[in-house]
Amino acid sequence: MCRLRFDLAYDGTDFSGWARQPGRRTVEQVLAEALARVCMLPEPPALVVAGRTDAGVHATGQVAHADLPRTVELGRLAARLTGVLPDDVIVRAVAVAAPGFDARFSATGRAYRYRVTDQVPDPLRRRDTLAWRRPLDAAAMDQAAQGLLGEHDFAAYCRKREGATTIRTLRRLTAARGDDAVIISAEADAFCHNQVRSMVGALLAVGDGRRGADWPAQVLQGGVRDSGVTVAPPHGLTLVKVDYPPDGQLAERAQTARARRG
Amino acid sequence: MCRLRFDLAYDGTDFSGWARQPGRRTVEQVLAEALARVCMLPEPPALVVAGRTDAGVHATGQVAHADLPRTVELGRLAARLTGVLPDDVIVRAVAVAAPGFDARFSATGRAYRYRVTDQVPDPLRRRDTLAWRRPLDAAAMDQAAQGLLGEHDFAAYCRKREGATTIRTLRRLTAARGDDAVIISAEADAFCHNQVRSMVGALLAVGDGRRGADWPAQVLQGGVRDSGVTVAPPHGLTLVKVDYPPDGQLAERAQTARARRG
Repeated sequence: MCRLRFDLAYDGTDFSGWARQPGRRTVEQVLAEALARVCMLPEPPALVVAGRTDAGVHATGQVAHADLPRTVELGRLAARLTGVLPDDVIVRAVAVAAPGFDARFSATGRAYRYRVTDQVPDPLRRRDTLAWRRPLDAAAMDQAAQGLLGEHDFAAYCRKREGATTIRTLRRLTAARGDDAVIISAEADAFCHNQVRSMVGALLAVGDGRRGADWPAQVLQGGVRDSGVTVAPPHGLTLVKVDYPPDGQLAERAQTARARRG
Repeated sequence: MCRLRFDLAYDGTDFSGWARQPGRRTVEQVLAEALARVCMLPEPPALVVAGRTDAGVHATGQVAHADLPRTVELGRLAARLTGVLPDDVIVRAVAVAAPGFDARFSATGRAYRYRVTDQVPDPLRRRDTLAWRRPLDAAAMDQAAQGLLGEHDFAAYCRKREGATTIRTLRRLTAARGDDAVIISAEADAFCHNQVRSMVGALLAVGDGRRGADWPAQVLQGGVRDSGVTVAPPHGLTLVKVDYPPDGQLAERAQTARARRG
């Protein structure tokens, strides 16, 4: 068996998200099929991913792994995969995974970026930038964001899933006006489902003056979903980076994680 | 009669360029049809444009004018046009044109940007960024660009058209490495057909080491098209700005231009 690590980028516009679903075009499916074709496997391999992006969400720094039944020729594999993949997915790099590496369970951090503009939108960026009709106060959004930092139960910002914890450590949440958009940057150990887009929805309510800068933190403390928090549309969101510990720590981490999961 | 000025942006990917052509989807056609619909005109009006962009070329700062048979309500006209236009075209602004204004003949300058990357390309920017397989030396490209500045007969960089002059004044041509691409910026009074893309093609030959930095200027001086100059693909190119003189000078300029054209 040979575990490969894939560094990926994709335009999520025309995908029904990462995870394979019958009858839908998903990133996992097209990548697994490309792997089967290029490596001449009997069937598309299973893939494990760091961030299961939703329909319409993009990635520049996604990471996945697959266990192949035999060693494959790595030389030019990334280019050969990109060659057979549709032009909205690119394999940035392929490597043999370090011992103990797991794209999902080894990851220690995920970073997302959300783009929103209150100016006349650029049609060339319509795929990855939300157009907002009201002027946004980026400084107020940035101030509000500070109230969510740290380790909390983010239940108020998560789509509930039976038995899953919603405790996360939010390491970074900033809003700043860039050249052509307000950029919201979010980093955490991990995010629960819809968390980034829900936090962005709350910050937008602050940015356009519907709510005060202390409101997102109040919602967090309330601990339940607030109907005032809308989930921002997916197309503004991009997974930009996944962090892993140094290779030497992977095997030990994997053992600890297995023990913790029982 | 009422002359309106339109400031436009579009993603040129799915257009056969600006100019109306039977059976093809062009920016001029969809804008004229939107105008007819929103202003309830008997037929799509003729449009005059500053830069007749080729198939696949984009614009963030295109300018056009149209003469409407009667005055129309300007309030929210830009938003109403954008509302009926497909999502790859946006009307940034509409205004009643100043006396003497002509989107094409009043223009004193056009600025284009070309994006090319020698890194692993970002699928989200594949529509407006050329992917180049060899490493690019942006400093050498920038140095080569200086040799083309000024007033010259750009016949060596133009697709010939009977009777049309190829003398142009190139005011700016720079190449610089940005965050995610090498950006080539070009400004002139006007460009002849294919000129920007041909100059970019020559700079790319310098950038990847096939030619020396003095070669583009040598080609210019040769005065004839050189088979070594390839026309760079359209999708990296965006019309970013059109310059006009102050409103008070438009009428006089129009008179002079008319006299010059006979």
